Amino acid sequence: MAEQDKLTIVMFSGDLDKALAGFIMATTGASMGMDVTIFFTFFGLNIIKRNEGSIKSKGLIRKMFNIINRGGSKRLTLSKFKFLGLGPWLIGKLMKQTHTPSLDEMITMAQEMGVKLIPCSTSCGIFGVPEDAFRDGVMSLAGAAYFLNEARQSKVTLFI
Amino acid sequence: MAEQDKLTIVMFSGDLDKALAGFIMATTGASMGMDVTIFFTFFGLNIIKRNEGSIKSKGLIRKMFNIINRGGSKRLTLSKFKFLGLGPWLIGKLMKQTHTPSLDEMITMAQEMGVKLIPCSTSCGIFGVPEDAFRDGVMSLAGAAYFLNEARQSKVTLFI
Amino acid sequence: MAEQDKLTIVMFSGDLDKALAGFIMATTGASMGMDVTIFFTFFGLNIIKRNEGSIKSKGLIRKMFNIINRGGSKRLTLSKFKFLGLGPWLIGKLMKQTHTPSLDEMITMAQEMGVKLIPCSTSCGIFGVPEDAFRDGVMSLAGAAYFLNEARQSKVTLFI
Repeated sequence: MAEQDKLTIVMFSGDLDKALAGFIMATTGASMGMDVTIFFTFFGLNIIKRNEGSIKSKGLIRKMFNIINRGGSKRLTLSKFKFLGLGPWLIGKLMKQTHTPSLDEMITMAQEMGVKLIPCSTSCGIFGVPEDAFRDGVMSLAGAAYFLNEARQSKVTLFI
Repeated sequence: MAEQDKLTIVMFSGDLDKALAGFIMATTGASMGMDVTIFFTFFGLNIIKRNEGSIKSKGLIRKMFNIINRGGSKRLTLSKFKFLGLGPWLIGKLMKQTHTPSLDEMITMAQEMGVKLIPCSTSCGIFGVPEDAFRDGVMSLAGAAYFLNEARQSKVTLFI
Repeated sequence: MAEQDKLTIVMFSGDLDKALAGFIMATTGASMGMDVTIFFTFFGLNIIKRNEGSIKSKGLIRKMFNIINRGGSKRLTLSKFKFLGLGPWLIGKLMKQTHTPSLDEMITMAQEMGVKLIPCSTSCGIFGVPEDAFRDGVMSLAGAAYFLNEARQSKVTLFI
């Protein structure tokens, strides 16, 4: 279990700004030849949910929760400046002007570069998120033991 | 100071969801044979405060602060969905249905597995939190130098 | 690229409490002889902006954004207890009573101890923050590749 040139990210937050920071790191790491894994947990699961369709979960509470916590990369909001729902529009505008890819484009880019996107099985269980809620190319669910095993072989581990 | 199979977590946040993420990692790490330390600072101190009794601190401002910032693992709220105080009830319900232990149970489990829980001395000084505010089995206060010394010997360090 | 006694921090958040945590770690690390770099990105850029003057950026949206997101170490707010703008006053009072240096003093101390403060070039581009918006002694802008290269040589890396 020697240390390898790996970058492992736990993506806990589902905020648009933190997701952007995570994917900028991930794609940069991959372009530098690092082996990159992102482990999505709690609200971070929202980032890799499909933008279209609805989530089919069992039980009234989970059905309700998955309506208010729908997710999808195009529906995320900022951690700040939530007033009037202006935040995502504003940052989208600023990113377009500087030719920065959108979060949705960055996720596709990351997948094409070999970044592994892994949903946390415990979170999916608690929140009732079925595997088909995630976009194409997302890997199978895995637990905290999988993450820690990756992390202890990694040069860089970030909790975002 | 060779690197050891250690997991060191700074628990800065006092949000219920982040506390759960921290303790899921900590107990999983311990079950994998890792040597796990959690260093509680700022609002993270709330997680390991006793659930019963009140906090006796000196000076009017600290007394007031420790009323609004009472803490205790059973009083934490979510980082999102604060509306109507519904968050903690909802997640508690979802966790029970999936037979996930509560945060309070996870803290006890972690302690039984040998996870070291250490309050930050600087934060305790600033916020006027006396050592007897913490639950049984919590270790003595230590400062940032102690944390960094643990962290630089650790395979995985997370700031939550 | 062997691992060195380095501490590398990504300062993503612009909250006063998280900035304090970051600078307490940074100055403690430096006093222990560690080589410390802080990489400021997104709202974290606010921490190292000058407290005086206004930010001159191009285009109406960026001008507006840099008014609502002005920054400066003396203008930051807490991540909690935002009610009545009381938070920063309260924590400032508590810190003074325990003879803890203010954030502004900690930043100066960190610079004197050789801690490298580096603004993220991508964030500065998106948000339209010119280099002269930052306080004296802040280093030149650098990107995510620079950060990852530091991080993969570091014993401890934190995302705050």
